[in-house]
Amino acid sequence: MQTHSSSNASVPDAEISDAAIRSLPQTLRHRRQQLAQQCSAPIIFWSGNPHSRNFPANTYPFRASSHFLYFAGLPLQNAAIRLESGRLELFMDDPTSASILWHGASPSRSQIAETIGADADYPLYRLKSFTEHAATIPVQDAATRLQQSQLLSRMMTPANGLQGIDLDLAKAIVHLRLIHDPAALAEIRQAAAVTVKAHEAGMATTRTASTEAGVRAAMEQVILSHTMTCAYSSIVTVHGEVLHNDRYPNPLQSGDLLLADVGAEAETGWAADVTRTWPVSGRFSPTQRDIYEVVKTAHDVCIDQAHPGVEYRDLHLRAATVLAAGLVDLGILRGRAEDLVDMDAHALFFPHGIGHLLGLDVHDMEDLGDLAGYAPGRSRSDRFGLGYLRLDRPLAPGMVVTIEPGFYQVPAILNDPDRRAKYQDVVNWERLAAFSDVRGIRIEDDILITPTNAEILTAALPTDREAIETITQG
Amino acid sequence: MQTHSSSNASVPDAEISDAAIRSLPQTLRHRRQQLAQQCSAPIIFWSGNPHSRNFPANTYPFRASSHFLYFAGLPLQNAAIRLESGRLELFMDDPTSASILWHGASPSRSQIAETIGADADYPLYRLKSFTEHAATIPVQDAATRLQQSQLLSRMMTPANGLQGIDLDLAKAIVHLRLIHDPAALAEIRQAAAVTVKAHEAGMATTRTASTEAGVRAAMEQVILSHTMTCAYSSIVTVHGEVLHNDRYPNPLQSGDLLLADVGAEAETGWAADVTRTWPVSGRFSPTQRDIYEVVKTAHDVCIDQAHPGVEYRDLHLRAATVLAAGLVDLGILRGRAEDLVDMDAHALFFPHGIGHLLGLDVHDMEDLGDLAGYAPGRSRSDRFGLGYLRLDRPLAPGMVVTIEPGFYQVPAILNDPDRRAKYQDVVNWERLAAFSDVRGIRIEDDILITPTNAEILTAALPTDREAIETITQG
Repeated sequence: MQTHSSSNASVPDAEISDAAIRSLPQTLRHRRQQLAQQCSAPIIFWSGNPHSRNFPANTYPFRASSHFLYFAGLPLQNAAIRLESGRLELFMDDPTSASILWHGASPSRSQIAETIGADADYPLYRLKSFTEHAATIPVQDAATRLQQSQLLSRMMTPANGLQGIDLDLAKAIVHLRLIHDPAALAEIRQAAAVTVKAHEAGMATTRTASTEAGVRAAMEQVILSHTMTCAYSSIVTVHGEVLHNDRYPNPLQSGDLLLADVGAEAETGWAADVTRTWPVSGRFSPTQRDIYEVVKTAHDVCIDQAHPGVEYRDLHLRAATVLAAGLVDLGILRGRAEDLVDMDAHALFFPHGIGHLLGLDVHDMEDLGDLAGYAPGRSRSDRFGLGYLRLDRPLAPGMVVTIEPGFYQVPAILNDPDRRAKYQDVVNWERLAAFSDVRGIRIEDDILITPTNAEILTAALPTDREAIETITQG
Repeated sequence: MQTHSSSNASVPDAEISDAAIRSLPQTLRHRRQQLAQQCSAPIIFWSGNPHSRNFPANTYPFRASSHFLYFAGLPLQNAAIRLESGRLELFMDDPTSASILWHGASPSRSQIAETIGADADYPLYRLKSFTEHAATIPVQDAATRLQQSQLLSRMMTPANGLQGIDLDLAKAIVHLRLIHDPAALAEIRQAAAVTVKAHEAGMATTRTASTEAGVRAAMEQVILSHTMTCAYSSIVTVHGEVLHNDRYPNPLQSGDLLLADVGAEAETGWAADVTRTWPVSGRFSPTQRDIYEVVKTAHDVCIDQAHPGVEYRDLHLRAATVLAAGLVDLGILRGRAEDLVDMDAHALFFPHGIGHLLGLDVHDMEDLGDLAGYAPGRSRSDRFGLGYLRLDRPLAPGMVVTIEPGFYQVPAILNDPDRRAKYQDVVNWERLAAFSDVRGIRIEDDILITPTNAEILTAALPTDREAIETITQG
C-alpha cells in the first residue's frame, strides 16, 4: 500500500508566497547549476509576450514560457534570461513612465534581479550582444519567436523539430524538469489544494445549478478567488464521452452523470489536473455505480502499483486489464481480460492513455513533443489501445504524473463498422445497451512518486462513490 | 431628459438563441448588401485560429475575428467567408473523424452554410482559387495572418497600416459597424443584462469577500454561468488610481473604495463594458461621497446631452468642465471651470477620455487604429486633457458608446514636478490631502444613441450612491 497521505497544504490567500520569494534565489541557483552540468553552451530563455485577442490592446491573460518560469521563477513579460556556467543574467526594460501612469508602480529591473538572484541585469536591447553560440527553446507567441529567430540567426518554429544545441538543451531540460525539486512540489501542492476546493464547490453547486455552465462557473470562481488561473480549458459536461469538450450549454438532468476535469495553475505557473464524475441527482444509478466501481478499481490499482522503477506503460496496461476484467464481470465484454487487452478491446471504452507528466505544463513539456514523455529510443505505438499514451518511461522519485482511467461510450468508436466487425464476438452489445446512462466516467488524481511508492497530491478530494454522493447531496 | 429606460432583456440561459439563429441569414444578407454598396471588390474575411498558451494543444479560448463575426455570425474556427456583390461563400473543412472522436459531433460545413445563408460552400483549400483582387483585414493570430499574406500575395501585418483596397474595405466596414442593426443591439442588450447581474453579484459579495480576487471571481462566475465570457480583463481593485490593473491581490479594508470595470461578451462576440465604484464597508465616507457625486454629475450630464449630432468630443469636454466645477466647489481646484479645462487641469484627476465605441470589440474596431474612432480628417490631439480620447465623431442614431468619467489620484501624475509647477496655483494641495481615501472612482455605462436622445443599456444597475450602498450592504 502506498501512503494515501493528503496534501493538507494550506491554501494561499496571497499570490506568490513570501517564503517562496525568499528562497527563490537558492532554488534558481540550484536549477541552473544542474542545467550547467548537462549543457555547456550559453542558454537564453525568453518569457514571451501577450497574445492579442480581438485587437492589439485587448490581450489574453499573459502566460510566460514554462522554461523561462522554471529558471527565472517569476512571470515577467517581454524579458529574457541568459544562463552560462551557473551565472544568471536578466534582460528586461524598466517600466516606462507611461506604463507607471497606466499600470501603476512596479518593481524595477534591478529589484527583480535581486529577487531572483541574478548576477547581472541589462536593458533588453543589450541582449543582442550576448547571443553568440546560445541555445534556446522557441516560445509560443509568434512575435517573440521572430525576435528569437533574428537574434540567434536561425529559424525558430513552434514545432518540435529542434536541432543541434537547441535539441541538446531540450534534452537537458527534460532531465531536470522530470524530477521536481521541493520548491516545485510546494507550488504543485498549492495548485492541487485549490483544485480540490474547486471540485468540492462543483459537487456542492450541482444541487442548485441548472446547466453545465453554472457548475463550471462555481468551480472556476474558487480558482480565481485564490488568485490562480485555470491550467487548461475546463471540461464540465454531462457528455463525458466527448473527451475534449470546452462548451457548457447543456442543462443538468437528474439521470445525468457530470464529468468535471478542472485544474488550477499557481501564479508561478505550476499546475494541477483533476477529474471527478458525479451524479446530478446526488445518487448513482445501479448501472452508473457498477461502471464507476470498475473505473475506481483501475484508478486505485494503478496508484498502488506506482513505484520507482515501474514502467508507466505497464500501469496503462494494468488499468486496461482491470477495466476489461470489470467489464467481463458486468457482462459487457467476453473473454479473458489479458486477451481482450492484447486485442485492444479495452480501448473501445478507454481510448486514451492512463495519464501524463504534470508540472509547469498540465502536459508537462509537451511543447517539446514526445521528448519528455517518451524515454530515449521509444516512440508512440500504432496500437489502438496504446497510441494515445503520452508517457512511456520508468517512474522515478520526484516525478509527478496523473492517473486517469475512464470509461466512455463514444459513438464514433462504438458505431464504427470496422471496429464493430473486429470486436463483434467480444462485446455483448445487448448487455451494453443496459448501461446507456453511463456516457462517460473519468477519475483523475495527481501523484508524486516517492522513494518507496506514490503520494496522492489530490487525496483530499475523495474518489469513493459514497463520499462523492455525500458532498453532492450536501 | 433622455429615456433612462432599462434594458430588461431576459438573460439567456442557452448560448446563441434560437431566434437569433432563425433570423441570422436575413441579418447577414442585409449586412453584406450594405457592404457591397460601399465596396465593389470581392472581400475575404478569415475567422482565425486559437493561440497556444504554453504548449500547442493548450490554447486560449478561441475568439473569432470581429469582422468575420459581423458578416458570418458564428464563431467558427479556421474558416473564411468570401463576399462579392451580396453573395456569401463559406470556406471551411468538415470535421475530421479524429475531431469527431475527441470533440464530439459538430455541424457539417453544409449545415453551417445553411444556418448562415451562404450561397455556396467549399473546403478551405479551395479558397486559393477565389482570392483574385480580394480585399481583407488582417486577423490577430500570426498563423492565420501568414495564410492571408500567402494567399493574397501581400504582407499582412497586425498594425493599422492598411493600404489600397484593404483600406477602402476598412472604411466601408467602419461605415457599417458604427451604426448597429437590431440583431447587433439584441446581442449587446444580452451582454449588458448579464453584466448588470455580474456587478450586482460583486457588490453583494463585498460583505464576505476578503480580497479583490474574491469579488472578481464572484463577478466572473455570473458571466461564465450565462455561457458568456469576459469582453476584456476585469479590473477589480481597491487601487482605482491604477487605470489598467489586471491583478487582484489586495485585501479589502473597510475604508477602501472598490472599483470594478467588468463586462460580459456574448457567444456571438458582442460586448458590454460597465464600471461601478462602491465602498467596501457598504457606506461612503463624507469625502468619498463628495467626489462620487461630482463624478456622478459628470456621468449624468453627458448622458443627458448625448443626442444625435452632438460631438462626442464636446461631451468629453463637458464632463471635464463638470468635474472641474465640482472640484472647485470642494476647494480642490481654484478658478473658473472653463479656464481650468482650457489649461487641462481636469486631466490631473481625469486623465483618460470620456469613453469609446462599443460593439463586437469593447473598443469597437480598435484593430483599425483610429479609423473608426476619429472622423475623416481628424486625429488625436496632443493636449494632456484630450490626447487619450478614443472617439471624436458626431453621435448618430444606432451608435453605442460608453460614458465613463472618473476621478483618480495617480501618483505618477500628481507627483510629477513639471505638472506640480504648471498647476501650482490652481490646485489646493492641502485641501486635496483631505481626500486621500479617494484613490479612484469611475462610473461607466453603455448608451445607445436613439433618434431623439440616448438610452442607457445598463440602466438596470443603479449609479445612485444610496442605491449602491443598499446593494453592497445587502
